[in-house]
Amino acid sequence: MNSPLSTCVIGASGYAGAELVRLLSAHPHFSLAALAAHSKAGEPLVSLLPNLRRELLSLDHEEFLDTGDPRLSECDVAFLALPHGASAAVARPLVEAGVFVVDLSADFRLDDRETYETWYGKHGAESLFDKATYGLVEYNRDALQHASLIAVPGCYPTASILAVAPALEAGLVEGSGIIIDAKSGVSGAGRKAKTSTHYCSAAEGIKAYGAGGTHRHTPEIEEKLSRIANVDARVSFVPHLVPMKRGILVSSYLRPTQVRPLPELQEALMDAAQSRYGSSPLVDVVDELPDTAWVSGSACAHVSYRVDERAGVVQAFCSIDNLLKGAAAQAIQGANVRFGFDESTGLSASTIFP
Amino acid sequence: MNSPLSTCVIGASGYAGAELVRLLSAHPHFSLAALAAHSKAGEPLVSLLPNLRRELLSLDHEEFLDTGDPRLSECDVAFLALPHGASAAVARPLVEAGVFVVDLSADFRLDDRETYETWYGKHGAESLFDKATYGLVEYNRDALQHASLIAVPGCYPTASILAVAPALEAGLVEGSGIIIDAKSGVSGAGRKAKTSTHYCSAAEGIKAYGAGGTHRHTPEIEEKLSRIANVDARVSFVPHLVPMKRGILVSSYLRPTQVRPLPELQEALMDAAQSRYGSSPLVDVVDELPDTAWVSGSACAHVSYRVDERAGVVQAFCSIDNLLKGAAAQAIQGANVRFGFDESTGLSASTIFP
Amino acid sequence: MNSPLSTCVIGASGYAGAELVRLLSAHPHFSLAALAAHSKAGEPLVSLLPNLRRELLSLDHEEFLDTGDPRLSECDVAFLALPHGASAAVARPLVEAGVFVVDLSADFRLDDRETYETWYGKHGAESLFDKATYGLVEYNRDALQHASLIAVPGCYPTASILAVAPALEAGLVEGSGIIIDAKSGVSGAGRKAKTSTHYCSAAEGIKAYGAGGTHRHTPEIEEKLSRIANVDARVSFVPHLVPMKRGILVSSYLRPTQVRPLPELQEALMDAAQSRYGSSPLVDVVDELPDTAWVSGSACAHVSYRVDERAGVVQAFCSIDNLLKGAAAQAIQGANVRFGFDESTGLSASTIFP
Amino acid sequence: MNSPLSTCVIGASGYAGAELVRLLSAHPHFSLAALAAHSKAGEPLVSLLPNLRRELLSLDHEEFLDTGDPRLSECDVAFLALPHGASAAVARPLVEAGVFVVDLSADFRLDDRETYETWYGKHGAESLFDKATYGLVEYNRDALQHASLIAVPGCYPTASILAVAPALEAGLVEGSGIIIDAKSGVSGAGRKAKTSTHYCSAAEGIKAYGAGGTHRHTPEIEEKLSRIANVDARVSFVPHLVPMKRGILVSSYLRPTQVRPLPELQEALMDAAQSRYGSSPLVDVVDELPDTAWVSGSACAHVSYRVDERAGVVQAFCSIDNLLKGAAAQAIQGANVRFGFDESTGLSASTIFP
Repeated sequence: MNSPLSTCVIGASGYAGAELVRLLSAHPHFSLAALAAHSKAGEPLVSLLPNLRRELLSLDHEEFLDTGDPRLSECDVAFLALPHGASAAVARPLVEAGVFVVDLSADFRLDDRETYETWYGKHGAESLFDKATYGLVEYNRDALQHASLIAVPGCYPTASILAVAPALEAGLVEGSGIIIDAKSGVSGAGRKAKTSTHYCSAAEGIKAYGAGGTHRHTPEIEEKLSRIANVDARVSFVPHLVPMKRGILVSSYLRPTQVRPLPELQEALMDAAQSRYGSSPLVDVVDELPDTAWVSGSACAHVSYRVDERAGVVQAFCSIDNLLKGAAAQAIQGANVRFGFDESTGLSASTIFP
Repeated sequence: MNSPLSTCVIGASGYAGAELVRLLSAHPHFSLAALAAHSKAGEPLVSLLPNLRRELLSLDHEEFLDTGDPRLSECDVAFLALPHGASAAVARPLVEAGVFVVDLSADFRLDDRETYETWYGKHGAESLFDKATYGLVEYNRDALQHASLIAVPGCYPTASILAVAPALEAGLVEGSGIIIDAKSGVSGAGRKAKTSTHYCSAAEGIKAYGAGGTHRHTPEIEEKLSRIANVDARVSFVPHLVPMKRGILVSSYLRPTQVRPLPELQEALMDAAQSRYGSSPLVDVVDELPDTAWVSGSACAHVSYRVDERAGVVQAFCSIDNLLKGAAAQAIQGANVRFGFDESTGLSASTIFP
Repeated sequence: MNSPLSTCVIGASGYAGAELVRLLSAHPHFSLAALAAHSKAGEPLVSLLPNLRRELLSLDHEEFLDTGDPRLSECDVAFLALPHGASAAVARPLVEAGVFVVDLSADFRLDDRETYETWYGKHGAESLFDKATYGLVEYNRDALQHASLIAVPGCYPTASILAVAPALEAGLVEGSGIIIDAKSGVSGAGRKAKTSTHYCSAAEGIKAYGAGGTHRHTPEIEEKLSRIANVDARVSFVPHLVPMKRGILVSSYLRPTQVRPLPELQEALMDAAQSRYGSSPLVDVVDELPDTAWVSGSACAHVSYRVDERAGVVQAFCSIDNLLKGAAAQAIQGANVRFGFDESTGLSASTIFP
Repeated sequence: MNSPLSTCVIGASGYAGAELVRLLSAHPHFSLAALAAHSKAGEPLVSLLPNLRRELLSLDHEEFLDTGDPRLSECDVAFLALPHGASAAVARPLVEAGVFVVDLSADFRLDDRETYETWYGKHGAESLFDKATYGLVEYNRDALQHASLIAVPGCYPTASILAVAPALEAGLVEGSGIIIDAKSGVSGAGRKAKTSTHYCSAAEGIKAYGAGGTHRHTPEIEEKLSRIANVDARVSFVPHLVPMKRGILVSSYLRPTQVRPLPELQEALMDAAQSRYGSSPLVDVVDELPDTAWVSGSACAHVSYRVDERAGVVQAFCSIDNLLKGAAAQAIQGANVRFGFDESTGLSASTIFP
């Protein structure tokens, strides 16, 4: 057995970063060597990661490093949990220094540069744009084994694609007219205090945001669904903010093709999902309707299907923990594949209840 | 000015019933004379309505009456907040005794008896089936003035119809392929303690239920939309349980007709809604996306629209307080119209914040 | 009947200010003429008070005025809901212009200037320091009728004094060794977004703060209890932050004197409270243990008592809505008394449930 | 290394039982062989433990066994998470069959039989009453190594004793006049659906219960504190129900002795706690005031102290996860000591955030 890979987390003071620190601390093959942050650089690690008091003792520094600290480029692997746009510029020197980068931002997720620029503006490291491998392991296992940079999928795209893709691949639903109604806990809005995340604003209310086809996760969902199923997927995506800390539930509404009569469609959908995910350790095809409570704290996704025969609509559901399968756990899952470890090493599918 | 109408609430121990008691206590034209309950008959009023301690002092009884108590048939008006199926049998003798009945159950909502029997089974008072007027005031004001029995709309249908109908009436969207993704607070599941409403089950999680076209509010939504817009509406409806006490948010996804080009559709939708609701005191057409927090405790609904031009989808939103515009306040609004009072008498559109 | 008093709210963008606006809009004798704010001056009223959309229409301005706007000094009455320290300087010119000021900050609550300076530092309007009347109506009704400036009690002191004072006045408990363990909802921390009020920080956890005798409400509680009961009260006060929007529960632990044997003490405590509050419209002495849920949205306080005979401890409880009886409603209650209106005019003791 | 001990959990369908199953599934030295339940016997395991779907696959039965199932008495160790009163009768035959019993109920916690009968009534297995060892490891490590039956401490007593005992042992505070104000999440009320645990009753409100010295955890706290510190401890204990799923916070108020002058007391208290817990893996003495959020999901307790010099009061705080350090984790910690494993084997002090 080889010695563990020395690893850093950059952007370790945010919610996804904190989860990376927690998971990597207990991972047998990644050894946590350095934690960096952007606006929190210089602050004591324990002030922002008090839940990991003991884990932090093994580090040789007590404050968050700056994102340009030379110790970072000495690592074998860097996990970047930085805001969109900021990540590419931090990634480039690391890649040039030979560090393997797993990037959790949106900077490297899209294949099509024009689409990227339409939705995000100018890219921060154009030379790397084509170098990344999309880290949705269940659909990209082979490519990830040879990845030179991993782009971890967005939280909403993860849940959306896991729900919709098996039906689309199997030709059971159409690529056009896909409706995705997504619901996310408040941690999805980030750790920074904002009016909208004030307890008194967020508790006891639900609302949509980014409606009207304006949310930036839309092109990611469309591009990936299109490639997976070799169709031209068109998606209307609306996220909602729900009074809970963690979790994403995607409820999607799809138009059945005529491949199978409606009464057989339920079974065909479950079969398609089982066939895609049956050997995947981190996606469970479940009979009951997914509840985010049952994946909170878990690296696993739950997917299920229903057919509304009267209305002629396929309903596809997926629940994930937005910070785990939607961020930190998926990043580690991809890195596990890249470095030849068992895919779910250091990741648990069970949850704490209640 | 005439003397107030003597009024009873039957099913006053549930959530909707308790709201009826609160609102009627302060209403200038209805005078609360009797409170009855089914399983809680004989229990002290104050044990189940401790928030209305002072209001209860004006009654001449201290325990919940039985649903067959003779005092009930001496009232001018009876509000029935009983479970589906149980209500019709209680309503009949009251109607026969000349009491004007406002029924909050599903028993009298549907016009089509076959549809009723398909979804609910045999009806409990067939002679009254055709006598009820559907109490969605914004679409039925004239008929309600001459109603002999009011069927108060369901909570989900209220929010669904208020969002979708203006667009459908105006010919801006199609009657087929309507997707309604609804989210409700836990009070929608009733006051009885159940596993699913345990704090530890309901907090910090969201899930769908009644998916696959099985929820009984579906035929009510379809029948009413069809009549309002003179189309054959077909709806795929999925409700979700959200960790909050009150509120329903409907996010609906509609197919635009070709009547207006997409870039003009946003304005046309807002105009259609404004034209329908502009003079209604209890529906506000708002620019921002509706948040249930801003209607919690209010008798008012908020509706808004977005057009996803890329995907060719109209998104219609409506937020209500499920116990008020979705139940108690709407019942009183209908009774106000029936008895010639100002429509919003005793009902407030403002809310407490936070 | 006289014409209503023209009234302004200064600091109307905060939580207590918003509640003042809501209550005053519906008050028969105060007529809302102007809303001002400090950091939010110039912002649209409706952006921060969207729940009062309709109420705002009656104002002749659409943005928050500056705290120095001349329209404010033309009012008959000004309610100030500004931060501690900032209020006195705003109050002085208003008082000099003949406006009757009801101040919700801590600036005028204490009688003893030395105590004030010890806990708060230099005062912002020393000439007014002695002019204020403490607005705890239940203990100061007579003086308030002739007040020239009202200092509205703090939220914690209100609940603490209402619970403890009747027992202390009646000589049933000692002034020394008073323990007050208080629990507050998150709105008590103010509307400004802070790390501690982020939904993800505040939900699903409880913690003490300001322990060790450092919280500034301590001297207010001690001074007022001492004057009411003519003793030298000494209080150890610890507040806690609870995951709920509104409400304060005070659980206080008192040492019985030997005036009454322990088995008679329970009745004597309830009698003492009943004797003090029996004719008060906004304090209820209740048998059951107070629950903040039953006063949320209400202007009323609930108090109750228990005797732990084994341990020889008197337990006194009080629940209030921190923004109402603990702020806005109490301010209006005091002003009602000052201007000769019925004490509870415009204030409701009932609550919405659930 | 020996083979793992075959282990059963009886009462595995409740909250504490479910946590035992989760922790034992991953424990290197206990091997889960059988799960039994009382009212849920015969129901599918996965219906009540859906979060442990994969863990359950290793069992040879798919439904909860009856509490009298012969497979239970073949185990080496049995963890009993049954209601008070019911546990003793189930424990006796197991003990007689040579199974080592770790009991989470109150049945074996008290040393004094008269006290037991006063608070709980007749005991269900008198022959075993004297055989149990109290499982508060930090105070009973030596005795636990030779225990023949472990009585796991109650959740409230755990937090109360961990906070108070070091100060009492060190002679820094008096045994009389101890005030314990405790706050618990809703899971403390059990998994059964009750009116008080309905989401709409429990959310957004806090209340005391079992006040007036009536809560059954009082004698346990008093007896254990008295033995640990060799004093006659007298405690007034009031629990509160807080809108959160997990966690207990104890805020206790103690009278300083004259052993140390007040200005030195803070340091002396922290030293006393450090001296008691410094080598304990599952109690952290922390500077900041404990927040239940930082121990939720953790097997660790946090304790801290403050001195209110003005009022002459010592404030001792402790936060735990009521289902872990307050139940399942503490049970395993005791069993670890009994069987000679490292005390924190299979138990983690870190938590998930947010």
